[in-house]
Amino acid sequence: MYEQELLALAAAALSALGLRPRDAHDAARILVLGDLFGIHTHGVERIESYGERIRLGGINPQPDIHAERVAATIARVDGDNGVGPLVGMRALDAAMAMAREFGTAVVLARASNHFGPIAPYNYLAAIEGFASIVGSNATTTIAPTGGADARLGNSPIGFGLPNPNGRPVILDMALSVVARAKIREALKRGEAIPDTWATDRDGRPTTDPQAALDGFLLPIGGYKGYGLALVVDLFAGLLSGAAYLTHVHSWSEEPEKPQNLGHFFFLVDTARLGTGAWLGERMNDFAAIVHATPPVDPDRAVKLPGEIELDRLERQRREGIDVDPAVCERLARMARGE
Amino acid sequence: MYEQELLALAAAALSALGLRPRDAHDAARILVLGDLFGIHTHGVERIESYGERIRLGGINPQPDIHAERVAATIARVDGDNGVGPLVGMRALDAAMAMAREFGTAVVLARASNHFGPIAPYNYLAAIEGFASIVGSNATTTIAPTGGADARLGNSPIGFGLPNPNGRPVILDMALSVVARAKIREALKRGEAIPDTWATDRDGRPTTDPQAALDGFLLPIGGYKGYGLALVVDLFAGLLSGAAYLTHVHSWSEEPEKPQNLGHFFFLVDTARLGTGAWLGERMNDFAAIVHATPPVDPDRAVKLPGEIELDRLERQRREGIDVDPAVCERLARMARGE
Repeated sequence: MYEQELLALAAAALSALGLRPRDAHDAARILVLGDLFGIHTHGVERIESYGERIRLGGINPQPDIHAERVAATIARVDGDNGVGPLVGMRALDAAMAMAREFGTAVVLARASNHFGPIAPYNYLAAIEGFASIVGSNATTTIAPTGGADARLGNSPIGFGLPNPNGRPVILDMALSVVARAKIREALKRGEAIPDTWATDRDGRPTTDPQAALDGFLLPIGGYKGYGLALVVDLFAGLLSGAAYLTHVHSWSEEPEKPQNLGHFFFLVDTARLGTGAWLGERMNDFAAIVHATPPVDPDRAVKLPGEIELDRLERQRREGIDVDPAVCERLARMARGE
Repeated sequence: MYEQELLALAAAALSALGLRPRDAHDAARILVLGDLFGIHTHGVERIESYGERIRLGGINPQPDIHAERVAATIARVDGDNGVGPLVGMRALDAAMAMAREFGTAVVLARASNHFGPIAPYNYLAAIEGFASIVGSNATTTIAPTGGADARLGNSPIGFGLPNPNGRPVILDMALSVVARAKIREALKRGEAIPDTWATDRDGRPTTDPQAALDGFLLPIGGYKGYGLALVVDLFAGLLSGAAYLTHVHSWSEEPEKPQNLGHFFFLVDTARLGTGAWLGERMNDFAAIVHATPPVDPDRAVKLPGEIELDRLERQRREGIDVDPAVCERLARMARGE
């Protein structure tokens, strides 16, 4: 399925859930970019879970999203409990408008929900010439270092740097060593996991995938990843006026309740720093130095962050998107109101 | 030695190296805060290495530091190869002035040198009410994931969040699993190291500390830490107009050459987001939730990032700073021009 078709299908499904047409299109754009990057778990298949929460009253399909300009370069966005990618797109648009005028901007969004993959926001900012740092808080799955209870979300953070003469650099990551899905896969296969992935419910490192699923994800780098996850929550949750830490409701356990998630968007207009030629030359020189690193495995060249995802984006824009046909079929049924 | 005495001693030593009095005082402030936080490796003892580089012509003792305002909220600072903490302080001051007026600001500094510990910049910003993200690039010690050559510095990054009703949260970290100093200690003791700390020169994980010192530091979280170190270099080095990646000269191997390091300072004025009472209440609630986490070890309560350093700061401000008397003696001799 090609990009425009998937976008139309996703927008139609979101419209059928009650979103206004323009809102449905904007939210669909983020999710389809997720699929284009190959992050299918955060692509259009998420629409089904959004639909479930809308039906339960946990998400508002027609939010009145309000941006309050509290300084020349700061806006606080109240997402009015809308679907996350819609709140995210409105916040990103507000940030780009302010940064275009003043050079930098910060938008802090509250009263939001799961806002999809992060890379699309960094990508959309980068193709407009903005360097960006974007983050969100999330339902708690990580224990603080030395603690035996989940208090932090596996908060995602993304960075984007534009390249007027080539590809942007995009880094989109969560702060756990691995995602819970990887532990579930090990459990299915009956395999032990490395003791660096998770702890049991008492906070002790474990190789037993079931004990790990009953316990807590370990952050990268021990207290460093714990600190990063905490800082993301401070920016995305605390400063925005959203929920933070254990105040965040779980979308899976309490789907009928607003989550009050928060996001942040920091933008810098790189056009103020020099010409496009200047920036493009430096970005390409930077990429060339990284690519010229002697590889450990002669058959596997060193890559920049986001390079695999941008390869997929370009290939799938040419050849069509590898999205699960069963997901498309279900979205088509949703769009027909079935 | 008390804070004011150490500040006077450090400023006198820097003045004797040729810095102007006000410049010497401002640079000393960052280094003394490093000692107050207990980060002595990045405290006043650094002045000796700065002196060596000044004598070799590698650092300019009387730089003409110039801030070019390229947008309402962006300044590019040319450090004119001055000592790093001085360039850093000028950049931070420029960022605070812009953020106070417009809400946010970014300052990108080039033509700088090792700018000391990061936590002091975040701390100084936080006590003025600014949330901050500060970073610097550094001499290459980390290989990209899948690569067998050092292309990235162990770039430090720091975050600060103010708390009008209590303590700020400060996270100051480098992106390697451990510092090279820890590997040197293992070598001295004749001990093996975990294979997660470093690789040998072919990029293969090693438990041999000598092979590790001949090889490359491993970043936290594998490709995630590699990506973070790379992004810090893009913001601090590439966007600022400084050197980046292998263009950065090593201060230890080529002390007579300008390093052309770069730094970035992102600031948000939290006074625009709500009252001090609002922010203080949320920060204290946040801290209380983290502190209430059941500890893995009943005798070791869970801590916030920066808490250990802020404990030391408060204690050393009351009781005096535990700085090596031999370092103080050498600084006193420098200050007397011996």
